[in-house]
Amino acid sequence: MSPRTTADPDMTKAILPDSALPTHWYNLAADFPEPLPPHLHPGTREPLKPEEMTPIFASGLVEQEFSTERWIEIPEPIREIYRLWRPAPLARARRLEKALGTSARIYYKNESVSPIGSHKPNTSVAQAYYNMLDGITNLTTETGAGQWGASLAFAAQFFGLGVEVWQVRASYDSKPYRRMLMEVYGGSVHPSPSDLTEAGRAILAKTPDTPGSLGMAVSEAIEVAVGADNSRYALGSVLNHVMLHQTIIGQEAAAQLAMFGESGPDVVVGCAGGGSNLAGLTFPFIGHSLTGEVLDDGASSSTPTSPSGAAGAQAAGAGSGTAVKRDASEFLRDGAPRIIAAEPAKCPSLTEGEYRYDHGDVAGLTPLLKMHTLGSDFVPDPIHAGGLRYHAMAPMVSHAVELGLMETTTVEQEDAFAAGIRFARCEGTVPAPESNHAIAAACAEAAKYDGEPGTGPVILIGLSGNGFLDLPSYAKFV
Amino acid sequence: MSPRTTADPDMTKAILPDSALPTHWYNLAADFPEPLPPHLHPGTREPLKPEEMTPIFASGLVEQEFSTERWIEIPEPIREIYRLWRPAPLARARRLEKALGTSARIYYKNESVSPIGSHKPNTSVAQAYYNMLDGITNLTTETGAGQWGASLAFAAQFFGLGVEVWQVRASYDSKPYRRMLMEVYGGSVHPSPSDLTEAGRAILAKTPDTPGSLGMAVSEAIEVAVGADNSRYALGSVLNHVMLHQTIIGQEAAAQLAMFGESGPDVVVGCAGGGSNLAGLTFPFIGHSLTGEVLDDGASSSTPTSPSGAAGAQAAGAGSGTAVKRDASEFLRDGAPRIIAAEPAKCPSLTEGEYRYDHGDVAGLTPLLKMHTLGSDFVPDPIHAGGLRYHAMAPMVSHAVELGLMETTTVEQEDAFAAGIRFARCEGTVPAPESNHAIAAACAEAAKYDGEPGTGPVILIGLSGNGFLDLPSYAKFV
Repeated sequence: MSPRTTADPDMTKAILPDSALPTHWYNLAADFPEPLPPHLHPGTREPLKPEEMTPIFASGLVEQEFSTERWIEIPEPIREIYRLWRPAPLARARRLEKALGTSARIYYKNESVSPIGSHKPNTSVAQAYYNMLDGITNLTTETGAGQWGASLAFAAQFFGLGVEVWQVRASYDSKPYRRMLMEVYGGSVHPSPSDLTEAGRAILAKTPDTPGSLGMAVSEAIEVAVGADNSRYALGSVLNHVMLHQTIIGQEAAAQLAMFGESGPDVVVGCAGGGSNLAGLTFPFIGHSLTGEVLDDGASSSTPTSPSGAAGAQAAGAGSGTAVKRDASEFLRDGAPRIIAAEPAKCPSLTEGEYRYDHGDVAGLTPLLKMHTLGSDFVPDPIHAGGLRYHAMAPMVSHAVELGLMETTTVEQEDAFAAGIRFARCEGTVPAPESNHAIAAACAEAAKYDGEPGTGPVILIGLSGNGFLDLPSYAKFV
Repeated sequence: MSPRTTADPDMTKAILPDSALPTHWYNLAADFPEPLPPHLHPGTREPLKPEEMTPIFASGLVEQEFSTERWIEIPEPIREIYRLWRPAPLARARRLEKALGTSARIYYKNESVSPIGSHKPNTSVAQAYYNMLDGITNLTTETGAGQWGASLAFAAQFFGLGVEVWQVRASYDSKPYRRMLMEVYGGSVHPSPSDLTEAGRAILAKTPDTPGSLGMAVSEAIEVAVGADNSRYALGSVLNHVMLHQTIIGQEAAAQLAMFGESGPDVVVGCAGGGSNLAGLTFPFIGHSLTGEVLDDGASSSTPTSPSGAAGAQAAGAGSGTAVKRDASEFLRDGAPRIIAAEPAKCPSLTEGEYRYDHGDVAGLTPLLKMHTLGSDFVPDPIHAGGLRYHAMAPMVSHAVELGLMETTTVEQEDAFAAGIRFARCEGTVPAPESNHAIAAACAEAAKYDGEPGTGPVILIGLSGNGFLDLPSYAKFV
């Protein structure tokens, strides 16, 4: 892991040098106390075989999808691109603490500094690289508001790959900035449904004026990917290999908390849509709580004297409005931090979904995945946090929730934006609407501690991105 | 200055810890070999007195405007806000070097990581602070596309000040994102001309459908500022105190080049609009070239063996398409880096303007400033680099150019965007349209060196901001 420096109690943010970039991704599948349920073949409902995924995904990614190795080395060409913006800063939110009147020490891991403005490139760069290794020359994907499409276009150019993105027509027409961003990076963007695919033509024949949907766009992107030997499809969340690539977030955060003199977080809060940002931030901490071997010594709870004890609170589901499925204390080491998944009230897959096998897409083209789902035909309200509008939750996150390793909570949209505006006015960065859910949930936790400033628990927030291209959403809440 | 670390030849970017944030601003007015011409009172044409500026500007800023002290301490409350994003990274543009086939080593100082996405908060935070010290509770300013207005709104909230921004109506209507950003930070934004001021009402009476102009907006903002004891006006460029606040850019860059093992740059290239980004990046290097005392040892040219010798090239105006007004070798130490100001061909104040006293605004409300000007009634073409559409150049930059301390060059808009798109595809970050001018000029310099990769001169580019909110401009050039 990363080098420690002498803690500076007055510093605002912890900055790791390029040389401290993690060398391996951490795979929680190695350390789950009960094994992760396998993906199933959609036809036979038998456990999926790797060779059944390779027509769609690069072989290196398929290998990771099935891996139970704890550490997977990050190839140097990927690390070279990561270093354009990573390690990302971790900052202490001192003004936010003051505004809340909390005794908690609040930190945020700032993924908004990537050239795309979010955590998505952590996986898009890896996905582009493994496709390049397989001799693939063209990647396809779908995108809604455009965050994932832009991240893939950004990544693909570094490895000489072309990118075709099917963007939901409603977003294509109404949110042109991210489309332009994809084009600056050399990506081709098609509104979906398009007349470029059989799936698209069939939909257009029936409903020529449809605004499109992510489900339709997935069908188009997969159809093109499987139709050519040199093409593959790329997915920005949900799958195990995507969770894996994001774990550099939590690894860096642990090292940076140590630079602040913290022995670790007491509460870790991330927003949950498909699950990748949440997994990236929290899995290294969960793994360490399970094994004691994932992070440097001390990267576990710093405040055994916090009100009810962190692990105790987790076992009891004692957070304000948080829920926990099972008492995980049988698995966890003493002092394990509480992990909170914050999801939108209008799309509550973890809190209200069923835990069962379901498809990842509307058309049923993906394998069956064991996850918390609202049903693959669930159409969420048009909330502004587009990245959280997904009907289900990543299998690895779902499994962690089932085991009691994570608590869940929901956040109303108005509360999310109120928290985001407060954060912007305290800390400067305007958060992505998705990140606002984590901030709101963290503020609710912090509000429980009103002692002497700086003496309470350590709360770590995942700031998954900035809201520059989401400002019209803010305008409605200012 | 900042601590040195062992140079890592493979690193991508140099990251300074919070503790290495500069403690003082550097004032080139102390080291000019011939004194800076004073500002003049617009009525008497006598040298302006400080007390004649204080009805408009905070007293701390007026003091800096007239100061010839070399170092001015940065108050801790300002440094505390700076640390939200500073020190800003300096990165080596290895992929850009490769794409250009140059032997030059190209670095860029990345000011785009600020919460606003540009260098402007370096001065807005300082201006808000000094106004707070004077008991001011409301700041007024004008803005075009909104970069400066957003930076001031961002800064003012930290010191409890309200901000009223008059935004040119054409931008107010057509570029809503930055207006929304100002509002997220609690700023009030009025389209200009407005019916809130006498100046605005007079203009509207004559031309009710006017799209507005910066000149009109300045008049409105100044009218409101001088109309109340608790209000002052804030300007985002041109004046000496603004140049001063930006000098942390160049100081950090010098320390970061040392972290790469470079003894200093051979060529420093910045874009020039009002002059603040250019001054901030280059003045510490110029000061060091004049005195040898401004930067740490070694922060001068690293490559005395470059083709014609850096100082020699400067004296001869040997850059491709660059011009120099005077042989400055009488002032400069051996090995002084060449300094290049890149301005838009459509608004060439430095290259084609007269050097004379002129007003900073259309209405003639500002003092007379000695500068390169196209005339205060010059209306530049509507190029996309809104921040470079200014009729004149800061007096300190103009003086440096007259003394031969800087070369100048112009860049056509298409070349600027072509360079920006290439940069984005190589280095990931989509530059602000303003920054593209510096990148294009730097690429032209780099193209002159085609030897063994990495063996040529060191070229330092100022990346003044990112282009997230300028993507519609890119769409026309992709």
